[in-house]
Amino acid sequence: MQDKAALKKIEGLGEGIAYEIKEGKNPRFVTAARTRSNILFDKKEGYLRLGSAKEERNFINVAQSKKFMQTVAIAAKCHKFLQENLHTTIRGLFYQLKFSLGEDVDESIFSEQAESNPLIEDLEVSLGVKREELNLNANRKGVLAGNLKVIDTFGNERQEIDASKMGRSGWAIPSDVDNDIEFVDVKAKYVIVVEKDAIWQRLNEDKFWKKENCILISPQGQATRGTRRLIRKLADKGLPVYVFTDSDAWGWYIYWTIKTGSINLAYIGEDVATPEARFLGVTMADLDKYEFLKKLTIKASDVDLKRAQEMLQYEWIKKHKEWVVELERMIKSKIKLEQDALQGPKLTFVGDYIREKIRKEDWLP
Amino acid sequence: MQDKAALKKIEGLGEGIAYEIKEGKNPRFVTAARTRSNILFDKKEGYLRLGSAKEERNFINVAQSKKFMQTVAIAAKCHKFLQENLHTTIRGLFYQLKFSLGEDVDESIFSEQAESNPLIEDLEVSLGVKREELNLNANRKGVLAGNLKVIDTFGNERQEIDASKMGRSGWAIPSDVDNDIEFVDVKAKYVIVVEKDAIWQRLNEDKFWKKENCILISPQGQATRGTRRLIRKLADKGLPVYVFTDSDAWGWYIYWTIKTGSINLAYIGEDVATPEARFLGVTMADLDKYEFLKKLTIKASDVDLKRAQEMLQYEWIKKHKEWVVELERMIKSKIKLEQDALQGPKLTFVGDYIREKIRKEDWLP
Repeated sequence: MQDKAALKKIEGLGEGIAYEIKEGKNPRFVTAARTRSNILFDKKEGYLRLGSAKEERNFINVAQSKKFMQTVAIAAKCHKFLQENLHTTIRGLFYQLKFSLGEDVDESIFSEQAESNPLIEDLEVSLGVKREELNLNANRKGVLAGNLKVIDTFGNERQEIDASKMGRSGWAIPSDVDNDIEFVDVKAKYVIVVEKDAIWQRLNEDKFWKKENCILISPQGQATRGTRRLIRKLADKGLPVYVFTDSDAWGWYIYWTIKTGSINLAYIGEDVATPEARFLGVTMADLDKYEFLKKLTIKASDVDLKRAQEMLQYEWIKKHKEWVVELERMIKSKIKLEQDALQGPKLTFVGDYIREKIRKEDWLP
Repeated sequence: MQDKAALKKIEGLGEGIAYEIKEGKNPRFVTAARTRSNILFDKKEGYLRLGSAKEERNFINVAQSKKFMQTVAIAAKCHKFLQENLHTTIRGLFYQLKFSLGEDVDESIFSEQAESNPLIEDLEVSLGVKREELNLNANRKGVLAGNLKVIDTFGNERQEIDASKMGRSGWAIPSDVDNDIEFVDVKAKYVIVVEKDAIWQRLNEDKFWKKENCILISPQGQATRGTRRLIRKLADKGLPVYVFTDSDAWGWYIYWTIKTGSINLAYIGEDVATPEARFLGVTMADLDKYEFLKKLTIKASDVDLKRAQEMLQYEWIKKHKEWVVELERMIKSKIKLEQDALQGPKLTFVGDYIREKIRKEDWLP
């Protein structure tokens, strides 16, 4: 159904351009500006989004006509993918463009993918659709286990996937979690997002998600578009979202990206950010709460220390004094903590830690 | 069952050491040397394995006693994990070692993981078990779809996973594909290993594995231990294995690692190498067979060209004249081909290509 909406939108764009040509006007394409100055932090909503600045591209304009033509070529290709009901990636799209622009123009106007990528984003913004709706798959990564069923209508086959029956593997989170996919029977009480796949596996082996009736997700590092979107969708179902990472630059980055979105994806900020997310740990403050961790700290890297300094400048971080204390503590002590360290005394402590933190409502905003 | 074998082997090691101490002898630990000079290419079998050189480590030896103690500490931890029936990673093991060596020794003798990693390999080689049997999970990556069922006995629950009913996601290949996991109903005719997840998704959407009755795997880049082991196991069931990568340094590396194993894993070469594997493409020779590809080449990088030169020196490569021709062609033309390029004329051509290549028996050894 959403596929059809995207199809109609592309057709609308084409009809508009055709009309302008027929009327003897200069065909134009309008999109929101994705420049740094038009990316802002929405204080009320709590995520990064685009401002109101627009960008116009005209066909009869020496500086813009090539880009204009390229954008139309991309729209035409996506229209074809939607009609064929087939998916590809932005790399596959690049090769289609390189091969041929269409039946009439047999000239390669795309020599590098760096040319087509930003134009795809232009199209997403202009049409108000995500690339997933244009049948372009993004990279996927991330895994899930829990009391949740997925109906995946895939190539006209309806497959029910039960995320509580996926053994040691879990359900691999797809690129697109919106189209032809449905989440039913979401019976869990909360969502826990665990940075490392290794810790996910540890918790999955303990059947943590079953005992706690939660949904256990690992983005397996930085979260992809698909995983961020899935977390947003689960939050929309009213589930609290807790994030559990290392206490270092990379861990904080993963958390804040899930929570506030990112500069790169500010143009779809609303769809991928989860401002309600809470940071469960590990924290430098844990060193006071769990005596054994004192023995298991490791040296913070220069990257960690530099990142902590930078983060102290962000308005959405410095308004939370708990975060300021946390970051300053690392800068001063020059040590960091990994989530793996919780396994020091016993392997199953990782789960005990999460349980206790949630029970005590001991998290950072 | 295999867990029990590993348990017995660790106990045997411990009993041997205890006996040596009781007899007033110098306790010792013998393992195969994993130095470069002891890694050889087995021409007959077609993979990299260790030679016969041994390494002995004695407790009463100033240079060796710390390592000896560390190795015993690792063995003791793995013994505990096996008894508890819990898994962790080499990172989790490191933190357990850092936390405490045991009840008596409360001193941290491991300061960095770089110290514990090689000792784990020592133990694997010495006991003739893989780390997976010591309840140490390795990184996992890789995905599979096809007519194959998996019985995953996971935390005493027996879960049947049908790899033909996993929708767009596929079955995530676990770290350990040997213990408490069974492959049943493997009804496919062959295995096709596709470098990129994006191409895997393309083929999965086309239900390529269903139409062809094959098993469709993507290692999602370089293959992990688990994925290599799985390919080996499927080959043991009599299935031909075809590998399909980019025609560049990285693609060739992925292929040759699957086929002949790697220097790092030479100590388990027999278990992870698949010398029967064939290279389906893409090849530089495809440029003569598929006219449209001429338009879709891209520039080879310096890394690609350097790697091609290096590969021409390997004995197991230079004996195949098809490979020599292939590598020399890239060096001369300075261009490369990606598997994604096959989508240029139409998205579904990727599958047609594989089908045709197999039908014509057009592959490299």
